[in-house]
Amino acid sequence: MCAGDDRTCPEFEQHRRELMSALGAERRAFLKSSFVATGGAAALGAMGSSLVTPALAQASTARAPGTRSHYYLPATDETVHWGYFSKNLKPQVEIDSGDHVTIEALTHHAGDDMELMVNGDPGAESVFRWTKDGKGVDRRGAGPMDASLFGRGAGEGLGVHICTGPVYVRGAEPGDVLEVRILDVAPRATANPDHPGKAFGSNAAAWWGFHFKDLITEPKEREVITIYEIDATGERSWAKAVYNYRWTPQTDPYGVVHPIIDYPGVPVDHSTIEKHMDVLKGVRIPIRPHFGVIGLAPKEADMVDSIPPSYTGGNIDNWRIGKGATMYYPVAVEGGLLSVGDPHASQGDSELCGTAIECSLTGTFQIILHKRGDLGGTPLEALDYPMLETQTEWLVHGFSYANYLAELGEAAQSDIYGKSSVDLALRDAFRKMRHFLMTTRGLTEDEAISLMTVGVDFGVTQVVDGNWGVHATIRKDIFAGMES
Amino acid sequence: MCAGDDRTCPEFEQHRRELMSALGAERRAFLKSSFVATGGAAALGAMGSSLVTPALAQASTARAPGTRSHYYLPATDETVHWGYFSKNLKPQVEIDSGDHVTIEALTHHAGDDMELMVNGDPGAESVFRWTKDGKGVDRRGAGPMDASLFGRGAGEGLGVHICTGPVYVRGAEPGDVLEVRILDVAPRATANPDHPGKAFGSNAAAWWGFHFKDLITEPKEREVITIYEIDATGERSWAKAVYNYRWTPQTDPYGVVHPIIDYPGVPVDHSTIEKHMDVLKGVRIPIRPHFGVIGLAPKEADMVDSIPPSYTGGNIDNWRIGKGATMYYPVAVEGGLLSVGDPHASQGDSELCGTAIECSLTGTFQIILHKRGDLGGTPLEALDYPMLETQTEWLVHGFSYANYLAELGEAAQSDIYGKSSVDLALRDAFRKMRHFLMTTRGLTEDEAISLMTVGVDFGVTQVVDGNWGVHATIRKDIFAGMES
Repeated sequence: MCAGDDRTCPEFEQHRRELMSALGAERRAFLKSSFVATGGAAALGAMGSSLVTPALAQASTARAPGTRSHYYLPATDETVHWGYFSKNLKPQVEIDSGDHVTIEALTHHAGDDMELMVNGDPGAESVFRWTKDGKGVDRRGAGPMDASLFGRGAGEGLGVHICTGPVYVRGAEPGDVLEVRILDVAPRATANPDHPGKAFGSNAAAWWGFHFKDLITEPKEREVITIYEIDATGERSWAKAVYNYRWTPQTDPYGVVHPIIDYPGVPVDHSTIEKHMDVLKGVRIPIRPHFGVIGLAPKEADMVDSIPPSYTGGNIDNWRIGKGATMYYPVAVEGGLLSVGDPHASQGDSELCGTAIECSLTGTFQIILHKRGDLGGTPLEALDYPMLETQTEWLVHGFSYANYLAELGEAAQSDIYGKSSVDLALRDAFRKMRHFLMTTRGLTEDEAISLMTVGVDFGVTQVVDGNWGVHATIRKDIFAGMES
Repeated sequence: MCAGDDRTCPEFEQHRRELMSALGAERRAFLKSSFVATGGAAALGAMGSSLVTPALAQASTARAPGTRSHYYLPATDETVHWGYFSKNLKPQVEIDSGDHVTIEALTHHAGDDMELMVNGDPGAESVFRWTKDGKGVDRRGAGPMDASLFGRGAGEGLGVHICTGPVYVRGAEPGDVLEVRILDVAPRATANPDHPGKAFGSNAAAWWGFHFKDLITEPKEREVITIYEIDATGERSWAKAVYNYRWTPQTDPYGVVHPIIDYPGVPVDHSTIEKHMDVLKGVRIPIRPHFGVIGLAPKEADMVDSIPPSYTGGNIDNWRIGKGATMYYPVAVEGGLLSVGDPHASQGDSELCGTAIECSLTGTFQIILHKRGDLGGTPLEALDYPMLETQTEWLVHGFSYANYLAELGEAAQSDIYGKSSVDLALRDAFRKMRHFLMTTRGLTEDEAISLMTVGVDFGVTQVVDGNWGVHATIRKDIFAGMES
């Protein structure tokens, strides 16, 4: 029987409804514990402190159709693009401003334990399918299809995230702003019958991690996978480690050997690894479900590696981009072309070792289009960077290069990996927060600089995504006394 | 009449009691609003999750005298050292382990508005006294007394903080650990009769700020002072800006012109500046009272610039070092020689423009000595960096150079200003957190790295103190399920 994600099934509609109903109950239960921490549903209502002014909300509402639709976008081999953004991708769904979309996102690290994260799950199986005769999704990364660069595989793994989409927003044009409200985030329960009500995720301490050249115990420069268990029923607000293992050279179904983690979706042969059970015994990792990747298609190139974040968002890897949060993105191409991927069960600021707890999630979003012509005089005017709003805070995201595709020239997509620093990302976050305060609050530069010194916190978002990130956080209630 | 801080007054004891009583009421009222945020008094009680194990607490208590004393250390020209640490300083007070000390700390930026922050306050007046005939405190900084380097003044301003102390802890020896519990922090009310119940602070956007070479409005490379008002009575949990002005060349009482902010305590002549009122109108800066500087004397040099933080603490500039927090420092010299200074009413992570809201505060501390011989097998064994514990979190402080005095050689105190980066500080924070997790929780390196990636947040402490800082924060309840 189809599980509600096989559109060729004659009873697909009925199965889909059953799936949705089951998912809904699971979601509601799961997320109650992280509700307050991530901002809550109040972001949906009209708030005086939203970046969307009442006048802009009215204008944008007036442009949207009177009725709203709710779309469901499953993750299958047909609905995902793996490891890249592209303005040339065929949309998976077309929506109007104000519509809701539920989007399944699969972790690209599910191959680290196929039994727990892929097998028995039709959507994941279709995406991860890889035999000597073919792959469910051949291209993985923005590199050449003939693997002529490194011989790793189609796309060369230059970009790693399984992205579901894109979603085409009718009427969206360059210069507009897309508001993406994250209404709900739920873990994808494992299909493994031995673990009912559980989800699983993988943390890879990999060669691109900040720690990698700085290990103190032998063998040096090892890669380590740690598998975590998440409660998909909502009774437990923390994840726990299940086991870990050192990466060993893995031979993929095409016969290519991967001595390191250099290509996404390689199924790890568990007969080649040694599992260490009882790791991190008693340690409870607070759950912070979020999407590492939510982004629009950039205009600068046809094929864009999914790893470095940029002005249209993408792989920002800020754990605050979860339930109750709202993101604002500048639209760079017609339709916006929104994709979602890199789901995380939890992550700390810095994502030190290279990945989070990479765990498949399903998100429900409301997407609202704000037209350029309506933005004048509002806080979203001329927004040219991805911005995060929670119930209590605004955050800007600084990167080593704000728009590396435009700044670094033709070789941008390779050069970015050698040019990043936290210092540069801090400088960009400083400039963006200054811009935000001066333009949205009418402050002088002197006022903005004093305020951001005594009332804004700068944190390390990630140091593992090519284009490193620093975020700056300001509390909304700082402005509670302003006339506005 | 003496205000309780002139020990030559015949009625000093009576006046002191009155002052203490008044301060006590003020403190209790003021801090109630920030009580929860900064950790609360629970840190005083025995906690299972403290870094001090029950056995260690018992051993350290057994070594201390049966009765505890409470000392009061006012800030006067006789009790402060300005701009440096030194193992050769004469102690201002000798205490036993377990004793309480209330320490007044004066901001070195009080000269930015003498009327609001110095005049009429006998302690501050004695410290800031500067006429053509002499200074209350001549040496300001670790530089030469004859100002032969730059001609700025005695000590050359190579180090800027007014430090009260040092406190000598009987029995403290190198290898021991000093636990400093911050029981209370209260703002120092202005003596200006026009502003009863208020305290004032200064934020200097200065030449050493991260923003300075990156201004977008004219005139470029300006320095700007913003004066903030703090409610000393406790009714208001936020600070507000009062006015700002651009720094103009200031001629000190000795006739030396200071075109930039290059020497601490220069009284600003307000007839030379233009005040801009109504700045940051309606903006409410959340109060985070804390001490930028709490540190022990390092062993590596006789005179140490107070600006760069190091292994014995000093100018860490983490706003979490406030009421309810506990700091742990490695003892480097006999007696420890603890000093307190650089009081802040608030600061954001990064201290971007160079200073916080620099505002005189009075702190009450309990200081507990843990002997090296008792530390074996406890989380404090071999602690060689300053560590912060709040009610809910542990934090390690990374610096670009963990011990720059030892690492950078003879020219360390000048070289450190050209060698810092956030990247280096992040690396140090990573290493210290790994050390903390492996030694105090018995984790393998692989476990520690995974945990600090998915459950530890790295933030930018400061990028303005020569030796830049990144802190790593881990929640205590992550270990709630551990047997320990």
